[in-house]
Amino acid sequence: MITLTSDFGLKDPYVAEMKGAILTINPKATIIDITHDVQKFNIRMGAFMLASAAPYFPKGTVHLAVVDPGVGTDRGAILVQTKQCFLVGPDNGVLMLAAQNMEIEHTYELANPKFMLLEVSSTFHGRDIFAPATAYLDMGMKPEEFGPELTNVVTPEFASLKSSNGTLTGEVLHVDGFGNIITNISRKEIAQAKTVNVKLQKFSLKLSLGKTYAQTKPQEAVALIGSHGFLEIALNRGSAAEKFQIAAEDNIEVTPS
Amino acid sequence: MITLTSDFGLKDPYVAEMKGAILTINPKATIIDITHDVQKFNIRMGAFMLASAAPYFPKGTVHLAVVDPGVGTDRGAILVQTKQCFLVGPDNGVLMLAAQNMEIEHTYELANPKFMLLEVSSTFHGRDIFAPATAYLDMGMKPEEFGPELTNVVTPEFASLKSSNGTLTGEVLHVDGFGNIITNISRKEIAQAKTVNVKLQKFSLKLSLGKTYAQTKPQEAVALIGSHGFLEIALNRGSAAEKFQIAAEDNIEVTPS
Amino acid sequence: MITLTSDFGLKDPYVAEMKGAILTINPKATIIDITHDVQKFNIRMGAFMLASAAPYFPKGTVHLAVVDPGVGTDRGAILVQTKQCFLVGPDNGVLMLAAQNMEIEHTYELANPKFMLLEVSSTFHGRDIFAPATAYLDMGMKPEEFGPELTNVVTPEFASLKSSNGTLTGEVLHVDGFGNIITNISRKEIAQAKTVNVKLQKFSLKLSLGKTYAQTKPQEAVALIGSHGFLEIALNRGSAAEKFQIAAEDNIEVTPS
Repeated sequence: MITLTSDFGLKDPYVAEMKGAILTINPKATIIDITHDVQKFNIRMGAFMLASAAPYFPKGTVHLAVVDPGVGTDRGAILVQTKQCFLVGPDNGVLMLAAQNMEIEHTYELANPKFMLLEVSSTFHGRDIFAPATAYLDMGMKPEEFGPELTNVVTPEFASLKSSNGTLTGEVLHVDGFGNIITNISRKEIAQAKTVNVKLQKFSLKLSLGKTYAQTKPQEAVALIGSHGFLEIALNRGSAAEKFQIAAEDNIEVTPS
Repeated sequence: MITLTSDFGLKDPYVAEMKGAILTINPKATIIDITHDVQKFNIRMGAFMLASAAPYFPKGTVHLAVVDPGVGTDRGAILVQTKQCFLVGPDNGVLMLAAQNMEIEHTYELANPKFMLLEVSSTFHGRDIFAPATAYLDMGMKPEEFGPELTNVVTPEFASLKSSNGTLTGEVLHVDGFGNIITNISRKEIAQAKTVNVKLQKFSLKLSLGKTYAQTKPQEAVALIGSHGFLEIALNRGSAAEKFQIAAEDNIEVTPS
Repeated sequence: MITLTSDFGLKDPYVAEMKGAILTINPKATIIDITHDVQKFNIRMGAFMLASAAPYFPKGTVHLAVVDPGVGTDRGAILVQTKQCFLVGPDNGVLMLAAQNMEIEHTYELANPKFMLLEVSSTFHGRDIFAPATAYLDMGMKPEEFGPELTNVVTPEFASLKSSNGTLTGEVLHVDGFGNIITNISRKEIAQAKTVNVKLQKFSLKLSLGKTYAQTKPQEAVALIGSHGFLEIALNRGSAAEKFQIAAEDNIEVTPS
């Protein structure tokens, strides 16, 4: 099984070209899209999407993620083997949030031209290098065949939580399509809390920690642990991000009590 | 075969998480998206999408639909068995337009935790309850294994047509991506008509009942029975909804002659 | 294997209805979307999408493309057999850019009602005629069974390049989701060039012919042969189309040196 995550959108033929490249090598592959609507060049958002969805896929799934502003430069191409899955993509951090969550075992460079398309363009490694690699991995090719093992890869600093005097300083990982504000503060940090004081850039809120969006009145705010295991600020039937004027990467301070 | 309909959009990882949950249980499942661009919380639009597409799928297909503003409250989770297919989703009406069109045989509550994910969140029953149910149904699990039979489910009042003195009062079921106005007036109600007088909120039109969009001049209006079997008001190469300032749920009066 | 290209969008149930129609006939079909976000009625853009992606699919793939402003009129329905694949769709040019690239062997009219749905609507041949044809072709039905051979089909004039005194007059085939301007000037026309003088409607540029988007500074323009084999004008991490106010179908003059 192979999943695809990218910032290519669905208006262009790029995603289909990757699928064609995979299916030409491996016609029996099952290919599932995670999303192709990652904001252009937004590595962090791609990393979040992949890290959210990957745990729900069967053991042995091969995940490809391409958010790749450095394509054609000397940024590396890598394959990460974890206890749960394989991850394939550029060496720019987009794979590493998912990789860390699933325990990294080995990382290899994608260097063996045997597992690339015959003609490798300098603008579309998703199709020419990454897609063929996923096709061969899904067919059972050993990861060490793809290139030398690496000990040093680009690791992003997303989600580095700071804690001081009972206040957690984190950030907004993502605003979802409902306008829910997803933070990088996880369940364990606020496990005992009944309420949270939340400081956003322009708003200070005191919210009870709820279980579901619908337990408040329409248009009222609620804090809850969302389906990803992170603290979310949500509005019942409305967009919290719009109301509180907040976007991904914004800082957030949370004091549980 | 399993189909998915939701208001999750394709920008977030939610749809992929449902697919991962299905494929972890049932790796051989064929999964087809109907649409994930239902307007947020618009149960009626979800119901219309599902009812339109479901008849074209093979007998025994399992259809999942999640438009679910009440997730986490005490709204029920149901499985509807029809002569043609299975339908899985929240008990809020989203399944019932399709269900009625395909002759309901039994309805069951989704109550058996054996057929759910181990951890059921209060915010994402699509992934934690509905997706696993479709996976097991597609593998041949008997519907009565999922929970007790129900005799009373939420049934929406979409499409209740009124007729008086030869004038039909209905409503706009949906405006499609071309701007075609799809009503809830079906073929049999206007079978003999050559022309229709149509009263919209701001416009009154006398249209001949045509067979195809292209038989009028560009930008001219035509009435026809669309591919779903319902009366449509369309503009050749233009948006009728824009020209006549009309949207889903608006009333419409039609007098055939 | 079957691919789908259309202007139906993903908000409506039309694409799912085509897939349902295919899978009812041929439940084992692998169906891949190329794109459904072709601009409404833009035959040229549909042709470009199909021509870009088709070469990456395995031999014997059946490609369906429906951008069909003339549906329901007397425009024909055709099946093109090439050395590499089958192409199915309306006889309005949408198939022909891909067909010419892959060497046409035979063209047939889709005339045999045995390979259509029982009820053929006048508004949705994608579902009622083209989808069933792809299902049967994918199952190995001989193309000559579908209808009489045709010798004369609608062939578009996209991409007719003019050359005079070393200056190539072409046009913009497509602007992709990154804002890259893709022209109809192919690799062989400018093979030896180091730089190109480019005349757009409001701008004249002298660009070196590069290999990758990232080799210039952010927001700077570069010319390169893109992954489709055509000359592109791109902006590193920005939209060239926006900066240079250019859209598909605009003329472009290129003088290589």
